Amino acid sequence: MKKKLTGAAVFGQSGGPTSVINSSAYGVIRTALDAEEITAVYGAAHGVVGILNDELFDMSKEDAGELKLLMNTPSSELGSCRYKIKEESELERIREIFEKYNIRYFFYNGGNDSMDTCSKVNDYLERVGYECRVIGVPKTIDNDLVGTDHCPGFGSAAKYIATTVAEVYKDAHVYDTGTITIIEIMGRHAGWLTGASALAGLQGLGPDYIYLPEIPFEMDEFLENVKKTYKEKKNCLVCVSEGIHHHDGTFVAKAKISETDGFGHAQLGGLAAKLAHAAQTKTGAKVRGIELSLLQRCAAHLASQTDIDEAFLAGKSAVEHAISGGSGEMVCFTRDMEGGKYKCGIKFEPLSICANMEKKVPREWITQDGTGVTKEFIDYVLPLIQGENSGKKEDGIPRFAKLKKIKAEI
Amino acid sequence: MKKKLTGAAVFGQSGGPTSVINSSAYGVIRTALDAEEITAVYGAAHGVVGILNDELFDMSKEDAGELKLLMNTPSSELGSCRYKIKEESELERIREIFEKYNIRYFFYNGGNDSMDTCSKVNDYLERVGYECRVIGVPKTIDNDLVGTDHCPGFGSAAKYIATTVAEVYKDAHVYDTGTITIIEIMGRHAGWLTGASALAGLQGLGPDYIYLPEIPFEMDEFLENVKKTYKEKKNCLVCVSEGIHHHDGTFVAKAKISETDGFGHAQLGGLAAKLAHAAQTKTGAKVRGIELSLLQRCAAHLASQTDIDEAFLAGKSAVEHAISGGSGEMVCFTRDMEGGKYKCGIKFEPLSICANMEKKVPREWITQDGTGVTKEFIDYVLPLIQGENSGKKEDGIPRFAKLKKIKAEI
Repeated sequence: MKKKLTGAAVFGQSGGPTSVINSSAYGVIRTALDAEEITAVYGAAHGVVGILNDELFDMSKEDAGELKLLMNTPSSELGSCRYKIKEESELERIREIFEKYNIRYFFYNGGNDSMDTCSKVNDYLERVGYECRVIGVPKTIDNDLVGTDHCPGFGSAAKYIATTVAEVYKDAHVYDTGTITIIEIMGRHAGWLTGASALAGLQGLGPDYIYLPEIPFEMDEFLENVKKTYKEKKNCLVCVSEGIHHHDGTFVAKAKISETDGFGHAQLGGLAAKLAHAAQTKTGAKVRGIELSLLQRCAAHLASQTDIDEAFLAGKSAVEHAISGGSGEMVCFTRDMEGGKYKCGIKFEPLSICANMEKKVPREWITQDGTGVTKEFIDYVLPLIQGENSGKKEDGIPRFAKLKKIKAEI
Repeated sequence: MKKKLTGAAVFGQSGGPTSVINSSAYGVIRTALDAEEITAVYGAAHGVVGILNDELFDMSKEDAGELKLLMNTPSSELGSCRYKIKEESELERIREIFEKYNIRYFFYNGGNDSMDTCSKVNDYLERVGYECRVIGVPKTIDNDLVGTDHCPGFGSAAKYIATTVAEVYKDAHVYDTGTITIIEIMGRHAGWLTGASALAGLQGLGPDYIYLPEIPFEMDEFLENVKKTYKEKKNCLVCVSEGIHHHDGTFVAKAKISETDGFGHAQLGGLAAKLAHAAQTKTGAKVRGIELSLLQRCAAHLASQTDIDEAFLAGKSAVEHAISGGSGEMVCFTRDMEGGKYKCGIKFEPLSICANMEKKVPREWITQDGTGVTKEFIDYVLPLIQGENSGKKEDGIPRFAKLKKIKAEI
C-alpha cells in the first residue's frame, strides 16, 4: 500500500458507447464519492475533450437515485469523444486543469485508443512529477482488448445479437416460399460479436454460415454455400462481420461485387444489402439484408445482468486500486471456472500492454472451413450473456438516468 | 345461441408475422382443445396453402407446456403464406378438405388480405350449404384493420419502436461532433408504427421529426428541417415510414433523390440510407441511416404484455363466439376508458367490413406541419405498450415453443 493520496478525481468516457458503459461510470462515481481520500468527483464532458476545454461536471451535485439509474442507462452519459492526443501542449493543458481542481485521480473508460490516451497522460504526469493515479477502465462491445479475459460491453451486445438472430430466424422461416437473410454485425477487425450469433444455435435457431474478419472472404465460396443451403432447406441465414475483407485486405463493404455488377461506386446501404443483392442475383430467391447498426451497442433493455454487474465492478475496482496506490494500469477481468461455475475476478495490467493492440478470435475457435465457431467459442461467451436486465420502466419504456450536469466550480 | 355444432376445428396463420401472433394461436388452440363441441384441433401449415395441400398438424399431439410457450414465441409457428384465392376450384378444394376432416370451425389469423380469404371461404361454404363457422382473428403490426380499436401485434411493435428510438437517441447524442440519424420504420400505407416513435419523447428521447405516409413528402422541406435542427442542436433524429411518397404517389424509397444526384437506379440500401445520404450532402454532417427491418415485428423479448394478453383473448374469443353460433365475423377490440383507466373489450364485426380496407392515422392526430403526432395519438398508443414480457429463457436467450407438428391423420 502506497502512501495516502488526497485530492479530487476526474472520470471520462471515450470511444463508441455500449449498453453498460454507464454502469462502469456508476462504479467509479459512487465509489469515489464514498471514499474519504477523494475530495471531489468530476465528470469530464466528452472525455479528454472536456478536460482540455475545462468542462467538468460536479458529480456531488447529482441526485443519488438518478446516479444509480446509470446502471441501466445506455451510451456515454457524460458524452464521448474520439480524440487522439497529438501534442505535448495538450498534455500540459491537462496538467494545468488537474492542478486547477487538485485532481489526483484520473479514471478513463474506453477501448484501445482510449487506453493509449490514458497511458500518455500517465507517462506525462509521471515525467513532470505531478502526483496523480491513473487507471483505465475497459469498455468495448468489440471484445478486442488485450490483457483482459473479456471486456465490459461485449456480453450485452452478444446477448442482443444471439437473441435477435434467434428472433429473425423465426421470422425468416415462416413462409412456404423460403428466403435468404443476411445479418450484418459490428466488429471491424475482430469477429467476437459476429461469432456470438452462434449462440442462437443452442436453441436450434442459429445462422447457417458465419463470416468473421479473421478469415479472408471469398465471394464465390459464399455464393456457392448460400445457393447449396437454400436449395436444400429453402432457407439460408448468414451472419457477417462488417469487417470481412478480401485476401488483399480490401473491405468487402467497399469493394465492387464483381466487374460486371454495374455497381462501380460505393454502396450506400452497407454490406448486408450488397451481399443480399449478390445472393439474389445468384439464386433468384427472396432476400433480405439486415444491419444491426447502433441497436447492438445501445439496446440496454436487453443488456446482460452479468455484464452490467461486471462493468460496475470494473469501475469500483479502478477507484479502490488507485486509492491503494495503483497507477498506470487498466482493470482486467480474469475467468475462474471453479467446479465448472463461471466467476469473474479482477487483476491489473500495465496500460502499455493494453493500448493500441487488438485481440482477435483465435483460429482454433473458428471451424476448419472458416464459416462457423467451435464449442470452445460458445463456452467462452455463454456465461457473459446470462441474467436479465430489470431496469426501471416508465410509460412502458425504459427510464434512464437524468443528470443535472452542473459545471464544476473552484 | 344457435344450435350446437360438433366437429373439428382448423386454425391458420397468414400474412407478415408479429411478436404475438402465436399468442392468438394459443388462445384458439387451447380453447378449442378444451371445448366439448370441438372434436379435433388442426393447425394448417402455411395458412390456407396448408389446407389446399392437405397439410394439417394434429394439435392434440403437442405437449401442453410447449403449446403454452407459444405465448412468448414470435412469428407464425405453423408457417404463414401470402396467398390470395383466385378461383372457385380452390374454394371447392377447401370444402373437400373440410369434409375429409369433418371441419366445422375455421379460424384464420391475419390482416386485411387474410380477412378477405376468410370472407371468401365463409361466403362459399354458406352458398354451398356446408355448415361451418368461420371467424377471423386480427393480426398486424400495421394497426390498419378497420372495425377494431387496434390490432394485436401493434402494441408490441410500438413498444419496440419507442424503446429502440429512445436507446438510439442516447447513442446518437454522445459525441461532441454531432450527428444526423434517420430511422426507417415499417408501415407502407399507414403511419401508426412510425408515429409510435413519438412515445420515446415522453422520456425526452423522441425524434425531432416524424414523417408518415399519410402526408405527401417534400424532399426540400425535409432537408431544410434537418439542416435547421442540426444547426441549432448539433443533432437531429428523424423517424420515417417506409411508405412515404411524393405528391404523385411515387414512393420516396423508389424515386431518385434528384436529377443530379448520380443515383439514377434503385438503391439497394433502402430509404433510411437514401435520406441519410441526402442529408449528408445538404449539411456535411456525420449521418447514419437505420432500418428497423424485421426486428420490429419479431422482437418478442420486448413484446408488450398487454398485447400478448389481448392477442390471446382475441384467439380465445373467436372460439367461444363460434361455439355460440357466430360466423362470418372478425374479432374486434373495443376501448373502455372507465375512470380514465384503459380496458380492452371484445365485439364482432362482419368480415366484409374488415377485409381489404386500411385504417390510416386521422389527419387531426398529425401535427399541423405534418412532421409529428398529437397528444391524442400518444394517449391512444400508450396503454397498448404497457407490461414487460417475462418469457422463459434458456442459456440467456429466449426459449421458444418447439412443436412436433405431427401430420393429422383421418
